[in-house]
Amino acid sequence: MNQRAAILTAAILASGAAIVRAAEPEAVSAESNVRGATSPSIGADRTIHFSLKAPEANSVEVAGGDGLGAGPFPMSKGADGVWSVTTPPAVPGFHYYWFVLDGVSVNDPASQTYFGYGKETSGIEVPEAGSTFYAIRDVPHGEVRAKWYFSNTTGAWRRALVYTPPDYNKNPKRRYPVLILQHGAGEDETGWTRQGRANFILDNLMAAREVVPMIVVMDCGYANKAGTVPVAIGPDVSRMDIKIAFGAFEHVMVHELIPMIDAAYRTMPDRDHRAMAGLSMGGMQTLFVTLHHPDRFSYIGSFSGPVIPGINTGTEPQGSTPEEFDPKTAYEGAFADPSAFNKRVKLLWLGVGTEEPPMFRSSIGGAAAALQRAGVHVVYFESPGTAHEWQTWRRDLKEFAPHLFH
Amino acid sequence: MNQRAAILTAAILASGAAIVRAAEPEAVSAESNVRGATSPSIGADRTIHFSLKAPEANSVEVAGGDGLGAGPFPMSKGADGVWSVTTPPAVPGFHYYWFVLDGVSVNDPASQTYFGYGKETSGIEVPEAGSTFYAIRDVPHGEVRAKWYFSNTTGAWRRALVYTPPDYNKNPKRRYPVLILQHGAGEDETGWTRQGRANFILDNLMAAREVVPMIVVMDCGYANKAGTVPVAIGPDVSRMDIKIAFGAFEHVMVHELIPMIDAAYRTMPDRDHRAMAGLSMGGMQTLFVTLHHPDRFSYIGSFSGPVIPGINTGTEPQGSTPEEFDPKTAYEGAFADPSAFNKRVKLLWLGVGTEEPPMFRSSIGGAAAALQRAGVHVVYFESPGTAHEWQTWRRDLKEFAPHLFH
Repeated sequence: MNQRAAILTAAILASGAAIVRAAEPEAVSAESNVRGATSPSIGADRTIHFSLKAPEANSVEVAGGDGLGAGPFPMSKGADGVWSVTTPPAVPGFHYYWFVLDGVSVNDPASQTYFGYGKETSGIEVPEAGSTFYAIRDVPHGEVRAKWYFSNTTGAWRRALVYTPPDYNKNPKRRYPVLILQHGAGEDETGWTRQGRANFILDNLMAAREVVPMIVVMDCGYANKAGTVPVAIGPDVSRMDIKIAFGAFEHVMVHELIPMIDAAYRTMPDRDHRAMAGLSMGGMQTLFVTLHHPDRFSYIGSFSGPVIPGINTGTEPQGSTPEEFDPKTAYEGAFADPSAFNKRVKLLWLGVGTEEPPMFRSSIGGAAAALQRAGVHVVYFESPGTAHEWQTWRRDLKEFAPHLFH
Repeated sequence: MNQRAAILTAAILASGAAIVRAAEPEAVSAESNVRGATSPSIGADRTIHFSLKAPEANSVEVAGGDGLGAGPFPMSKGADGVWSVTTPPAVPGFHYYWFVLDGVSVNDPASQTYFGYGKETSGIEVPEAGSTFYAIRDVPHGEVRAKWYFSNTTGAWRRALVYTPPDYNKNPKRRYPVLILQHGAGEDETGWTRQGRANFILDNLMAAREVVPMIVVMDCGYANKAGTVPVAIGPDVSRMDIKIAFGAFEHVMVHELIPMIDAAYRTMPDRDHRAMAGLSMGGMQTLFVTLHHPDRFSYIGSFSGPVIPGINTGTEPQGSTPEEFDPKTAYEGAFADPSAFNKRVKLLWLGVGTEEPPMFRSSIGGAAAALQRAGVHVVYFESPGTAHEWQTWRRDLKEFAPHLFH
């Protein structure tokens, strides 16, 4: 192909989004595929057909995050050099996945990538029958704005993504409450809109008048103070190291992010109109930051965030069991006076998926139970049939957001 | 490592952005690396050290787009199973690249990915000594907003990215001119901000008062009319097929995108305050759309867009040589009356890199010369030392934008 033909072909190729050639009659291309890609495809039974052309490879497998199945799934090679496999029915929702090609984890060129596991990782969206709450629908849509700001704490530029509600531009004098919504470990500020579809969830809930219009701020959850060496990495990471990492993020959020947002957007800049929530590491950070700063937050949501009270005090040793959670002393005594806490905090939400590993279920469920026994108002939410995965957190957001700012 | 330790380690790992351990004393991690990754690294001489751990692989190479060098570059395997190579000095700027692992093109897990070649592709940013025009600097920054809209033309939701200038939110009554800025084939609406850094280029130019504040709209350049089968793909793609593909995009732009933008943002919605530019395929689309609609655009920029006049008429056969470009008949006679054209169009810009392949240089340079001979005012811009690559288009934008809206 000559150069011009190659360019023009690329142009046309890229316009071929509608082509669907699936593995089975009823299978369809995943909506997470890149434009025009017919693989992977998903059957009506939520089995997934993956393929990769690799004539010279010795072995290819599919592996992935919770929800995809037990895996890894060995693929077999066809006469055309294309390796393929159909995996068992997947849990509905978004799943990270990758190929293991001769021992190396690589992306599927046919899928979009999403920032997870500290790198760009392929993802697949598995439809949930009858579920439209995170679909893009014919309702007014908010914008998602990339906002750059300089942090003196870290000595570097940072980027936050800011969702403004559908009516924001039409009401130039109206002010809005703010939800800060944080991603998990290995992810970044793009997670909640790309993997989580938070903007579509909120568009849909606002259109149904189930959620009040609000601004949602999604920041990058990593920070290390300027001039410091990032904390040491290893399986024996201490609670003190976690505290250092979270502490730098807390400093950015309280002293830089929130003032910047309140200056740049039409917010209601007081504690009654500020919420924070996050998933996994972001949930841990939410408890860490909000319980340190009760003067700034009225609504608190931890979605699948392990409840490890010791990180707030740097207490050793490592262990975290439900028994350790003592409402009197946890989080520097934030819950010690349940009546005062209940008056001050309008919502404390702890969520977990029913299929999450025991550590999550025991630390989150145990803390929720202990708080309830102590008289602290807490909403404990379980996502049925989902593990430590985005479908759990989409459901958390859908159920959490309607409680905010009344 | 147990599950909790794994999660916490991931959290800390992801915070370790500042670690730099480069291949040579003066080499530094590329700024396009994912947080914490030390490879690839770039030497002071712009040699690049790539590495990939693949103990079981039989062969690994680095390959990439224009500007990285001749390639592919075979990598050699160390005793630790890590394959590596140091490539010759690269051209400054952004380059797509990938590994060829046992015959399969795969991404580098240590680099960010960018949408190019119709898929997510690794990229590397090679510094240009003394060049700060596309750096993020201590100046006021505009926002980049994701804006969803439904297209009746295609029967699908689309997403445009909209750059609003730094003062947009502070002047709720001010209205702004609009530049529509399009990506190339195989790329998407994210290209101009991620690979191109258009927002930082414009922030810097506005801070220096070299460019008037403007809104910049970056749309997805693909469309096929609802219910139609995308045009056939192959090396013999005809001009008529190109015309069909561009025609659907033109319909979206003129009848849906522009009215939507004018309704949603504080624009100056007339031809005197509307420009369009694009790179490669986007440059071809710019000529296609603007020359069809002189009532809507006053400023026209084609950056490395092959000038193939026949696509506007569907004329066969395929060939495109400078000789074919006849200012009297090209683009349905848009230039036939040079004096009228010069009065109507405030800027016609044709750009190309000095290292681009002959087809680009001859069709663009030849058209510019023919237009100049015919008396049509045209600015012909050459980017020194760069090929069909983003550094060319960053320079185009930097030089083009100051001419707009005076």
